[in-house]
Amino acid sequence: METEKTLLEYQDEVIKLMIDNKCILARDILVEINNAVDVAEILEDVIQEAGIKEAVLLFRSLPKELSVEVFSFLPVEDQLAIINAITEKEITSILEQLAFDDFIDVLEELPANLVDKILEKTPKEKRHEINTFLNYPDGVAGTLMTPEYISLRKDMTASEALEYIKKEAYDSETIYTCYVKDKGRKLVGIISLRALLVAKDEEVVENIMQEDYIAVNVHQDQEEVSEVFKKYGYLAVPVVDNEGRLVGIITVDDIFEVIEMEATEDIERMAGVLDSSKLEYLDASVWTHFKSRLPWLIFLMVSYMFTGLIINHFEDMLSKVLVLVSYMPLLMGTGGNSGSQAATLVIRGIATGDIETRDAMKVLWKELRISITIGIVLSGFNFLKVLLIDHRGFLIALTIAVSMLCIVTFAKVVGSMLPLIAKKVKIDPALMANPMIASITDMFSVVTYFALATLILGL
Amino acid sequence: METEKTLLEYQDEVIKLMIDNKCILARDILVEINNAVDVAEILEDVIQEAGIKEAVLLFRSLPKELSVEVFSFLPVEDQLAIINAITEKEITSILEQLAFDDFIDVLEELPANLVDKILEKTPKEKRHEINTFLNYPDGVAGTLMTPEYISLRKDMTASEALEYIKKEAYDSETIYTCYVKDKGRKLVGIISLRALLVAKDEEVVENIMQEDYIAVNVHQDQEEVSEVFKKYGYLAVPVVDNEGRLVGIITVDDIFEVIEMEATEDIERMAGVLDSSKLEYLDASVWTHFKSRLPWLIFLMVSYMFTGLIINHFEDMLSKVLVLVSYMPLLMGTGGNSGSQAATLVIRGIATGDIETRDAMKVLWKELRISITIGIVLSGFNFLKVLLIDHRGFLIALTIAVSMLCIVTFAKVVGSMLPLIAKKVKIDPALMANPMIASITDMFSVVTYFALATLILGL
Repeated sequence: METEKTLLEYQDEVIKLMIDNKCILARDILVEINNAVDVAEILEDVIQEAGIKEAVLLFRSLPKELSVEVFSFLPVEDQLAIINAITEKEITSILEQLAFDDFIDVLEELPANLVDKILEKTPKEKRHEINTFLNYPDGVAGTLMTPEYISLRKDMTASEALEYIKKEAYDSETIYTCYVKDKGRKLVGIISLRALLVAKDEEVVENIMQEDYIAVNVHQDQEEVSEVFKKYGYLAVPVVDNEGRLVGIITVDDIFEVIEMEATEDIERMAGVLDSSKLEYLDASVWTHFKSRLPWLIFLMVSYMFTGLIINHFEDMLSKVLVLVSYMPLLMGTGGNSGSQAATLVIRGIATGDIETRDAMKVLWKELRISITIGIVLSGFNFLKVLLIDHRGFLIALTIAVSMLCIVTFAKVVGSMLPLIAKKVKIDPALMANPMIASITDMFSVVTYFALATLILGL
Repeated sequence: METEKTLLEYQDEVIKLMIDNKCILARDILVEINNAVDVAEILEDVIQEAGIKEAVLLFRSLPKELSVEVFSFLPVEDQLAIINAITEKEITSILEQLAFDDFIDVLEELPANLVDKILEKTPKEKRHEINTFLNYPDGVAGTLMTPEYISLRKDMTASEALEYIKKEAYDSETIYTCYVKDKGRKLVGIISLRALLVAKDEEVVENIMQEDYIAVNVHQDQEEVSEVFKKYGYLAVPVVDNEGRLVGIITVDDIFEVIEMEATEDIERMAGVLDSSKLEYLDASVWTHFKSRLPWLIFLMVSYMFTGLIINHFEDMLSKVLVLVSYMPLLMGTGGNSGSQAATLVIRGIATGDIETRDAMKVLWKELRISITIGIVLSGFNFLKVLLIDHRGFLIALTIAVSMLCIVTFAKVVGSMLPLIAKKVKIDPALMANPMIASITDMFSVVTYFALATLILGL
């Protein structure tokens, strides 16, 4: 993309200008760019490279309208840094002009005394609404929504509705989907601007609105909300309370972040990291990282101790054929990797909806065939290597080869089935990924390997 | 969501009715649902549970308009199954009414002779356009776009533009963003329906259109396209060719799938599975799975062989203190898991843009502190366990404890740095995840452990 390249150039230029105290020239560049997202990105870098003082200077010099928009696109920590550096009057003036959902996001991060001061100045009714929004727990639909939507009456004509939309356009998050409520604030229908525009002028809203709409509940999990967007491809989804009253709408641009967060959470759990996803890697403290990583390491350590006990049990045999030890990493590692491949594919399949618990038998049958094919190739390869390159003799080569086949098959079957079982008993399948599978496979690998060795080598 | 629950009930009901040959009743339920996405989902299940014959019967009985829409939401394999079961005339009639991008998607999957037959019947000009679209390689912007957009002239007034949009609304993928081209088909500006609606009637398009728009190139990778959507929150993005001519637009609903596919690709690579993401798990053949999984297993196997060689090297020492073997899984496993946690967090941070290569020093410093903290806890824990529970004596406990600290630190440092190095040399960081890190850590673990044992135990 051309713009991307010039953006980086602009960025370097602005930073250089700010370091040289040429704020007005830097400001002119930002005004020329005139895209709040890009300007916010550059401002972020000014904070990092030139310092917060310079960034605030630059921020203050921006035209009012642009500065508010830029503010809404800055990461939370930069928003707070700016708020700490400007006057209370400036803060209030920015917050007043933010879209309602951005306003709530900022408020949530501000220290309590500042929030109180800001709330003191807002009219009572609005204060009540703000408090309701502030009270939704993290991760539910309520925290994603905005109350700034276009609300129509069902007895309006299409042309009246369009006139009304024109008037309200500035204060709404979207005007492309409008909402029709009855007197009890209950949502009775939705109507797209497209439908209003193509309708005859005198057509009544009630006749063209869609009554079979999809709505989400204000307490519904954000992951379910993102599923609705993915499934139906909507631009906005209405949010209702338990009584079916319309309390807000969620627009598609707020969903990207949710999808990314949910994927991050899954990926982290699959690597044995617990719920660190709320903070970015660099922003999280050492202590936060410590807490999110230690539990699984300890849990898995216990399983390795069992593997150790199994090895102890075979100490006599091992002392006779010590060379067996050198093949342990090969068998345990390949087992772990095989299992982790299967587990990952199944976990992802469950997450994207391709695999359901009722498909368990199909998955099992597929993994059995895959693992036996792969197992035979790896076994054959190792048999020849141990026999011809390592010169360990036929029986040891046979022990390794048969162990390999058993271990790969076991690993893939367990790897594919555990996530499905977890799903069935309502545990997050992502927890059944690599670390878990590898530690189970380890135990099986050691037992199988040593038992086969005892048998085949007649020890 | 209430609708979700009733949807499952509807589904069971429809399947039962179809098995009992009560097609008309089943059809009435689908017509009542009247949501193409939901009806497509039910039809999918009818194919699976009742059979393709029943599904086609039901599909044919749907009102024409609904059936075309439903068809566009079916998965490819079900679309093909239906096409194989209906007449050529019915096929043509469905395809004609599909949105252009859906039409291309279906065409791409049809056998060549059927495509030829369909193209024979289309006008020459359209045939040319179809062929251009069919020729874009997988995964570029060109395959996501549609040529059905609203195109305005810059000398139109706002009210003329609105009139024009009303007329064209039915044939456009979106009417909420419109595009202004010059005579050479070059894109000169974009304008939102919102801006047109709030503008004065006699205002000229040229004065209200946005000239600093973001466009993507037709050959740009779909991952970059999805980045543009995520960053700017747009509902649609214009696609231009190398000469800056507007060739199509991409709408936000087509991006969800891309984001999901890219996340799947990352997750699979992190588990050592290569590029199977184009097919769903259950649809991919055993052979496809075999090909996507074997390469990494073989590659990693070679690294385990090196670990084996290292163990061989220490055979003499091991034969003297065989009990050391039983702690190998503990040290190697914990090392692998520690490294994989760090690698995963850094890989994900790179993917979401939180971590850049220039942050390498910050990451290193953070991981050093985290790994030493975690290492000390795990070391202490194991020292006491080996000493007090296993009764192995002070020196062996010390060997295990010191090894643990070294291994955890090494693993986390390598785990966090390798993805950043990969990024720097333009290899996909996702390839540096667990299997890769674990195999490197394994070698280091064995060497460290045995070398420390030789030293501390004086062997």
